[in-house]
Amino acid sequence: MSYNKTANITAETINPRVKTFNYEPCGEIARHAERLQEELNKNPGSRPFQEIIYCNLGNPQALGQRPITFFREVLSLCDNPALLNRDEAHLLFSQCAMKRARKIIEAMPGRDSGPYTPSQGIKSLRESIADGIAGRDGYPSRPEDIFLTDGASSAINLTMQILIRSEEDAILCPLPEYPLYSGSILLHGGTMVPYNLSEDGDWGLDIFEVKRCLEEARISGLTVRAMVVINPGNPTGQVLSVTNQEEIVEFCRKEGLVILADEVYQDNIYVDDKKFNSFKKVARSLGYTEDDISIVSYHSVSMGYYGECGRRGGYMEICGFGEDVMGEICKVASLTLCPNIGGQILTSLVMDTPKIGDDCFENFLAEKESILSSLAKRAKTLEKAFSSLEGVTCNRIEGAIYLFPRIHLPAAAIKAAKTEGVSPDIFYACRLLNDAGIAIVPGSGFHQVRLLDSFISV
Amino acid sequence: MSYNKTANITAETINPRVKTFNYEPCGEIARHAERLQEELNKNPGSRPFQEIIYCNLGNPQALGQRPITFFREVLSLCDNPALLNRDEAHLLFSQCAMKRARKIIEAMPGRDSGPYTPSQGIKSLRESIADGIAGRDGYPSRPEDIFLTDGASSAINLTMQILIRSEEDAILCPLPEYPLYSGSILLHGGTMVPYNLSEDGDWGLDIFEVKRCLEEARISGLTVRAMVVINPGNPTGQVLSVTNQEEIVEFCRKEGLVILADEVYQDNIYVDDKKFNSFKKVARSLGYTEDDISIVSYHSVSMGYYGECGRRGGYMEICGFGEDVMGEICKVASLTLCPNIGGQILTSLVMDTPKIGDDCFENFLAEKESILSSLAKRAKTLEKAFSSLEGVTCNRIEGAIYLFPRIHLPAAAIKAAKTEGVSPDIFYACRLLNDAGIAIVPGSGFHQVRLLDSFISV
Repeated sequence: MSYNKTANITAETINPRVKTFNYEPCGEIARHAERLQEELNKNPGSRPFQEIIYCNLGNPQALGQRPITFFREVLSLCDNPALLNRDEAHLLFSQCAMKRARKIIEAMPGRDSGPYTPSQGIKSLRESIADGIAGRDGYPSRPEDIFLTDGASSAINLTMQILIRSEEDAILCPLPEYPLYSGSILLHGGTMVPYNLSEDGDWGLDIFEVKRCLEEARISGLTVRAMVVINPGNPTGQVLSVTNQEEIVEFCRKEGLVILADEVYQDNIYVDDKKFNSFKKVARSLGYTEDDISIVSYHSVSMGYYGECGRRGGYMEICGFGEDVMGEICKVASLTLCPNIGGQILTSLVMDTPKIGDDCFENFLAEKESILSSLAKRAKTLEKAFSSLEGVTCNRIEGAIYLFPRIHLPAAAIKAAKTEGVSPDIFYACRLLNDAGIAIVPGSGFHQVRLLDSFISV
Repeated sequence: MSYNKTANITAETINPRVKTFNYEPCGEIARHAERLQEELNKNPGSRPFQEIIYCNLGNPQALGQRPITFFREVLSLCDNPALLNRDEAHLLFSQCAMKRARKIIEAMPGRDSGPYTPSQGIKSLRESIADGIAGRDGYPSRPEDIFLTDGASSAINLTMQILIRSEEDAILCPLPEYPLYSGSILLHGGTMVPYNLSEDGDWGLDIFEVKRCLEEARISGLTVRAMVVINPGNPTGQVLSVTNQEEIVEFCRKEGLVILADEVYQDNIYVDDKKFNSFKKVARSLGYTEDDISIVSYHSVSMGYYGECGRRGGYMEICGFGEDVMGEICKVASLTLCPNIGGQILTSLVMDTPKIGDDCFENFLAEKESILSSLAKRAKTLEKAFSSLEGVTCNRIEGAIYLFPRIHLPAAAIKAAKTEGVSPDIFYACRLLNDAGIAIVPGSGFHQVRLLDSFISV
């Protein structure tokens, strides 16, 4: 592809912030995998495998996970509400789905799923979600605190856009980190202050380590505005204990930090001794209101047992920001008009699933449990496999859908990587892709080790 | 709502760029309209009208426009591909929709509509869109130049994020302007350089006026990177002549400006003496390739006869940027993972509609023509009504779905506005809302007059 030299739009002349970050799950290895797949399509048999197994992104339906029938039925009906008036529809859709679709459509502006909605999302759907949150936590939730978004990633980007004023504004993030955070912080002109999770301590979060990082950042002149906590952990798979969460709440309250709680894996927990507790629930159970601590909780339809990544549905619940800020967030959201309606509907379904007595309940539950037990089984199988491999160590997976093993490469491999001019983890990931057709993300893609103890800023 | 004083997240402490812009179509009048509607729901009869008529946003389905059956059938089937294997589905869906849905699903990763797609969008859908563009223009289009997006607004925001490096970078925009442009430019830290459309000359675009603005901007030390042209015009409803478009192409080529061509109203033209020509077609017909001029064309599923605003589908076709820039755009897009799948599918449908011989063709055509003739009729009715009102003048509407009348208020009204401490246009819009239930956007919301001849920057 050539380009027009007069306008001179090149990588050297665009917004320099764009060049400061990488998002490896969609980065070089992923692109190489796509090229390999095209090569394989043209030339089957040219490699010792038939197709690429994409493990570079949490994308369960791309790896064969089936969608929940109830969700898809409701979406299908809401897309085409004319079906709700057709007798034959009963042959194809459950009663339960038709009832729910009717309820959703009736509460929509214009009684159809076509118009722009308010930028914050459709009110009736936000009400269902608030009820779902309240039911989950045992503490009230208000629809006006909920912003529907095109997946959690849009919500995270919007938050960074609101919080970051200059590169002196910093956000505490865990390492290894889900690189959406560093990417978004750098793109919006801020500074990421990493805190280390302990690989030797089951990816535990040590509040003294966070405190040390906060203090160092402050000494460097940074204003730390918020702390990101991903629970269950991405990409590390740990689940925080309530005691640990209480420490985090106390710490953030005392230090005046907003908790940015990435809670998108709340339905993915595989061990009996841990359960999910939202940060809001933990804060409320300590007696703290939104006057004491600000918490933004992110959720999405992409993970859990739903796995509806491409639908781009999600929400953030914002507790403790001023009303004027909520108005400003709405204004920024209105620059993309509104979140997509299918995603909005699906988000409400995930937070308000079929109940006992609904005709589709048995089927819904069976599908849900089958997916969750399959995920748990595969998590354990992988954990066991990694632990039995020579030169590989791996922490226990408690939740989320990832494992983050440490691979101890032999000296010869490290030397070969050096000869090729790449880091050993990238060398390994490329070999795994080329020889076995498995696409993964090298550890450095999560800024493990490489960025340890350094601030990342533009 | 109270807020947490420790973290101190208030309108005074957030990103100051957020406070520099307004997006009036979703602004104060729209919020007041929503409050009024709620009041009316509780207290029917409390006002001399039953419900608010929302004319503040191009949102046709909210005003009763019906969706195209074929589009909704395909979406409904793609949401629930299991239907494609059910005999009973033939009772509810046209052959044509089932065939298309099958084709779309078969080309999808994982043969379902659930997974994340590539950040640029699904390749097979981009191929259909490229074919549609090539068919429309008579010049080739490449799928690798097309980025699928969550509506045109996401594409516009992404472009600004890429092009703007600092407030010295400027973008030429028409006045009256669709305020998404100023909003996005200011939010991303750039400067908007307005050029005036001529109200006395049917909202014509005078290239000497644009040249004058460019020169003034350069004298002020600004680097002007691009020129926004909205054709058919939003909010002004004019359609550019080919001669005028040729002048713009020559001007931008000579001055090294990217043409940002907002072409979302390409299917909305109501006069026989004008037709839509894309800027790319005009440039190619002058013999210019992407080596000579860079053009980004935006399109969306929200307008035209489709009106599927809430679906958030759209694309941009980028011609003339370097390949490295395309990679960087992909990277920024990957921070929100991918555009929503429903929107992607719908965008491909809009660019590849049923053909003669398809079983649904007659019905599709009838629905399309009925919507377009209704839009044309209403446009003419409104134009006539405005022209016959005392104190109102209005240019001819040629395309898009808006009229931008000038309202000459009597001195008493201007005085009353002054007493209330608001500008006369806002005073008028509030009275129209309170007394007649009609929500509009005051002229200043499009920066008409108020910002004439001044640069808008942070």
